[in-house]
Amino acid sequence: MTSEPPDAELGPHQAEVAEIADAARLLIAFNDEYDDPAPAAGWFAGHLRTLIDAGDTEVWLARGNAGVAVLRYRRQLWEDTPECYLAEMYIQPQHRGQGLGGELLDACIDAARSRGATYMDVATTEDDVEARKLYESRGFGRTEGRDDGPLAFYYERDL
Amino acid sequence: MTSEPPDAELGPHQAEVAEIADAARLLIAFNDEYDDPAPAAGWFAGHLRTLIDAGDTEVWLARGNAGVAVLRYRRQLWEDTPECYLAEMYIQPQHRGQGLGGELLDACIDAARSRGATYMDVATTEDDVEARKLYESRGFGRTEGRDDGPLAFYYERDL
Repeated sequence: MTSEPPDAELGPHQAEVAEIADAARLLIAFNDEYDDPAPAAGWFAGHLRTLIDAGDTEVWLARGNAGVAVLRYRRQLWEDTPECYLAEMYIQPQHRGQGLGGELLDACIDAARSRGATYMDVATTEDDVEARKLYESRGFGRTEGRDDGPLAFYYERDL
Repeated sequence: MTSEPPDAELGPHQAEVAEIADAARLLIAFNDEYDDPAPAAGWFAGHLRTLIDAGDTEVWLARGNAGVAVLRYRRQLWEDTPECYLAEMYIQPQHRGQGLGGELLDACIDAARSRGATYMDVATTEDDVEARKLYESRGFGRTEGRDDGPLAFYYERDL
């Protein structure tokens, strides 16, 4: 079952200050959906604001605020342009299947380009078929940029 | 064939200003080995210096300057501590098989911890068996932190 997001005429857009609390709640709902731990909403909204103000983070909202994406920027190692990491991307379950994720990702790619970024990356898991299909539909590849390249794995550890 | 690195008594250490040009040459040799494009050595050494001075980058050299690692730091999204991305890690071919990579990675993990980082990540490819073995030996996992978790893929695209 899908439903129209509220305020569906409001397309994907960068979160305004007044919307940061909404974005924080969406991100926490994302973690809740996957049984990942999440911080308290009030603290997290303040932290998002701090990251945005520091200049290396953009928070984007999907059409009708039915989802959220977080972009992290830094200067690249190999050239003097920014690179963009898609840190989070979430559409509420009841609003999936309507293209909102693709529309949001397109807006994020445009945003990264407009900041001069020449590279964008994202990690996801094998079982998240919808996310993988979305990223692949927007030109992301997991084989080192070549169709016949080796699979790229994402490794992590807590310290 | 492996050989002792020069100045083998000098263990892994953060690159001093006078060593940045050496680090740049090692990183360029890394790209050359994999037929990846690389910038001019002089420009790249200056760029590394700029990144180090900006505070979000550390360049580490392996024992005897036989290899190099680059760490990138940023404030985490979900908690107010740094996270550390192992952007590059390279041991010269003639010095492999002597544990220099493990020793360098241990030093990098210690460095990240000493900056307060609580999370570290790295991307590599399926065919780079030596790198994967090294990361796995140091506690990195590609299955979302659980042995039976889904495989994590790294997606990228140029913009």
